[in-house]
Amino acid sequence: MHSLWIRYEHDGRAGFGRLDGERVHEHQGDLFARHEPTGRSFALSELRLLAPTQPSKVVAMWNNFGALRARLGLGLPEEPLYLLKSPNSWCASGDAVAVPRCGGKVVFEGELGIVIGRRCSGVSEAQALEHVFGYTCANDVTQAEILNRDASFAQWTRAKGFDTFCPMGPAIATGLDPQTLRVRTLLDGQVRQDYPISDMTFPVPRLVSLISQDMTLLPGDVILCGTSVGVGSMKPGSLVEVEIEGIGRLSNRFG
Amino acid sequence: MHSLWIRYEHDGRAGFGRLDGERVHEHQGDLFARHEPTGRSFALSELRLLAPTQPSKVVAMWNNFGALRARLGLGLPEEPLYLLKSPNSWCASGDAVAVPRCGGKVVFEGELGIVIGRRCSGVSEAQALEHVFGYTCANDVTQAEILNRDASFAQWTRAKGFDTFCPMGPAIATGLDPQTLRVRTLLDGQVRQDYPISDMTFPVPRLVSLISQDMTLLPGDVILCGTSVGVGSMKPGSLVEVEIEGIGRLSNRFG
Repeated sequence: MHSLWIRYEHDGRAGFGRLDGERVHEHQGDLFARHEPTGRSFALSELRLLAPTQPSKVVAMWNNFGALRARLGLGLPEEPLYLLKSPNSWCASGDAVAVPRCGGKVVFEGELGIVIGRRCSGVSEAQALEHVFGYTCANDVTQAEILNRDASFAQWTRAKGFDTFCPMGPAIATGLDPQTLRVRTLLDGQVRQDYPISDMTFPVPRLVSLISQDMTLLPGDVILCGTSVGVGSMKPGSLVEVEIEGIGRLSNRFG
Repeated sequence: MHSLWIRYEHDGRAGFGRLDGERVHEHQGDLFARHEPTGRSFALSELRLLAPTQPSKVVAMWNNFGALRARLGLGLPEEPLYLLKSPNSWCASGDAVAVPRCGGKVVFEGELGIVIGRRCSGVSEAQALEHVFGYTCANDVTQAEILNRDASFAQWTRAKGFDTFCPMGPAIATGLDPQTLRVRTLLDGQVRQDYPISDMTFPVPRLVSLISQDMTLLPGDVILCGTSVGVGSMKPGSLVEVEIEGIGRLSNRFG
């Protein structure tokens, strides 16, 4: 069933609820286990959004889309290639993405995020989707100049790990078929990315299965699927929006 | 002042306390903020050790010791080169390090861990040590064959991120001067690493300061300082012990 779940702050307290148009129906309990409505509801405009999940880790894919691979002249990966986004990078729709102290060129990467719903370790491809709770939008922000400036060690973690470099949200959507989704990224209102998830090299069930062979995945954990063509620079003041139909629009200003 | 702090499980509940010889004096509160003794104490032998901290992140250094750099013919890094250890990799002294599903060569890397005590962002080198709570021992376990098998993407996160690949402990020691410490690693009782922390390229204050320019560090976060010469393979059944005088001996069996 298609539902939208958000986390928010209201009167200085964190809560979560189901989004229905512009109304939010508060729930209590554990979004990934037992929870029930409290009977309270709010206007969305009264709330400050939080990142829609509090993961133990965010695993971010590299070279996972055919179109970007062709553009960059990369080879077909034999296995999922990934890194971790640092917890200090996670933030919500509406939060500002901070200019890093080191400055330099900072790029947006609009991505689909898979939100894990059930603990899994060594799960098969056939059973993988039973362990997925839903999907969210993400911006895998990257300081592009750091990445390869040391010839002996690619600085993926650092380039992608600055504070606020991983906006996620606005909501987690359940009941979607990921193969039908498109990721659109807008820079100051202009579409810069518009690519189909069906171009993923390791589709969602295969990705979850393969990563779970290495690492136990926990409820709330996120896998960022990687990006495709159209990545570009942000300037201080730029507004970046990552939009996926059925999920919503993740909106963050840079600087 | 030199003190040793451990986390443990007792009667199915997690707790923490100060280690005094073979006795543990229980405390309550927050180890990194306010806490006080409960008046209860235990024999160490009654308790199951837990990892001594519950970090938001563990940052692991590469190429940070002169002796190993010379051995491998690497260049002097101009900045700290680091990755993140995945949360599913964190475990305690006494826990088994699991053989990964993919098998292959698995190596130990005995290391000093810096435990952050106060939130810091953009802290100066002069003030960095005020933000350090203490030090622990760590084994930065690595599946060595995965690392470079994809020519386009070094798989640091994956090679070092398998479940149980980051034992830490047994304790956090306060009141130590890190420049005086030595890291000794024993494989089945034989010394395989014995190197001085004074050989670190980026010593503790500089490391904390530089990483805090990129990422906000939180109380309980750990920086693994990197390893030096003597890294070697573990076989199923191997016992690896990482020992630092003033901290104790981190002991883990492989397989």
